[in-house]
Amino acid sequence: MLVIGERINGMFDEIGKAIGEQNPDIIQKSARKQLAAGADILDVNVGPASDDEEGAMAWLVETIREVTDAPLSLDSTKPHVQRAGLEVSSDDVIINSTTAVPEKMEAMLPLAAEFDCDIIGLCINEDGVPRDADGRMEVAMQLLAGCMEQGIPPERLYIDPVILPVNALPQVPQEVCEAIGMVPALADPPPKTVIGLSNVSQGATARSLLNRTFLVMAISHGLTAAIMDATDKAMMEAMIAAEVLMNRQVYCDGFVQAYMAGRGCE
Amino acid sequence: MLVIGERINGMFDEIGKAIGEQNPDIIQKSARKQLAAGADILDVNVGPASDDEEGAMAWLVETIREVTDAPLSLDSTKPHVQRAGLEVSSDDVIINSTTAVPEKMEAMLPLAAEFDCDIIGLCINEDGVPRDADGRMEVAMQLLAGCMEQGIPPERLYIDPVILPVNALPQVPQEVCEAIGMVPALADPPPKTVIGLSNVSQGATARSLLNRTFLVMAISHGLTAAIMDATDKAMMEAMIAAEVLMNRQVYCDGFVQAYMAGRGCE
Repeated sequence: MLVIGERINGMFDEIGKAIGEQNPDIIQKSARKQLAAGADILDVNVGPASDDEEGAMAWLVETIREVTDAPLSLDSTKPHVQRAGLEVSSDDVIINSTTAVPEKMEAMLPLAAEFDCDIIGLCINEDGVPRDADGRMEVAMQLLAGCMEQGIPPERLYIDPVILPVNALPQVPQEVCEAIGMVPALADPPPKTVIGLSNVSQGATARSLLNRTFLVMAISHGLTAAIMDATDKAMMEAMIAAEVLMNRQVYCDGFVQAYMAGRGCE
Repeated sequence: MLVIGERINGMFDEIGKAIGEQNPDIIQKSARKQLAAGADILDVNVGPASDDEEGAMAWLVETIREVTDAPLSLDSTKPHVQRAGLEVSSDDVIINSTTAVPEKMEAMLPLAAEFDCDIIGLCINEDGVPRDADGRMEVAMQLLAGCMEQGIPPERLYIDPVILPVNALPQVPQEVCEAIGMVPALADPPPKTVIGLSNVSQGATARSLLNRTFLVMAISHGLTAAIMDATDKAMMEAMIAAEVLMNRQVYCDGFVQAYMAGRGCE
């Protein structure tokens, strides 16, 4: 499974301050820490406070690129902010994200085609987030059709079925699991799947427990990627065990350590 | 989910010794400890060493019945040992277990009918354990047909799809998850499902991690019950979180504590 480290986000005080002060050390330290903890991809979000979001995104990408070539997930709903990041990224970028609202797709999908990169499509349309798994698949089909019109191959699309807080909407986690299991039937090769994991526990107690438990559930239904806190050790252990149990990683004595060392068991 | 506490088993040194010496304290202490930790049902297994298995089973059941009316899972493949336990149990007993091998079903299913109790049916026939989920469902149908011939209603049958060690058979956990998800389609009302959880990690390291991770996966596919170590706190927490995420328990702040106190959040 692909771990998209969520920590470079201006929403977090330390990161927001570093963006404001253009202090590269904090950003680069977070990038290194997440990669060392097992992140495959780094999410990059300028956060809510920036006056110059384009400049902040470009600076963040350039700052991270000084220390790693790891893939980046550019996290913004604004096409001009995406473009600012895309223009200074090298290869291996994911646009995070578009919805299936027509104006949004018309602005975002051409960027994915122009920069030949992956894109996350949220299962949200003009009516909001669908109630159940079937509704999510209808929106996923709209996203897929939009990609195909732009010549973006299905496997470049990550479907995000949109997990919502379990304390407010207790029926959503199972619908999301079901939706994850339905995506492979949409196309051949199929789109990938991704979730913004920590949303499941927004406003809840025992957040790490709920997050890692839902991650395991989603993996057992075939999840490809999650935006998550790679530095949560209990979560990474649960993920690695789930990968072994799904036969995506080979079991060996010490499989957790082998995975963390970047080797796996083979 | 129903937790079937696995600790009263002669395979464990302390329990085996207590059975040999007919020392009720150890047995009753284990019963109380498992129930306090969240077990709903207690498995009762005389273990490998007993000369008089019938006597040992009857003594175990009577000893446990002195301290609790909790349901018991009589764990023996031998019909005469089952009968010895059934005759001294009051209500609320599960026969654990039969296979779909005809001679075994012919011996075990009439006991379930005679004592009007639940029975666990292992997905094992003359050819052993099937390779995949579809094969398991074929055997499940044989078990279900056997029950119906004896007048045992489908909901009295627990289908056990037979989890095997992941270190030897890495493809089995996902087949078992898939099988669990298929059982509800077999009849209406459907049979229940159960797994012998700790088998998944037999011979492996990080056993508790593998056990609780597989438990969460199985719950997300609809598992009804597991034979497991109720005294493993991390496992119980993972199970409770999975129950909340499956909308089988209501979320509240402190849902873990509320569940353990036997109240849930309502």
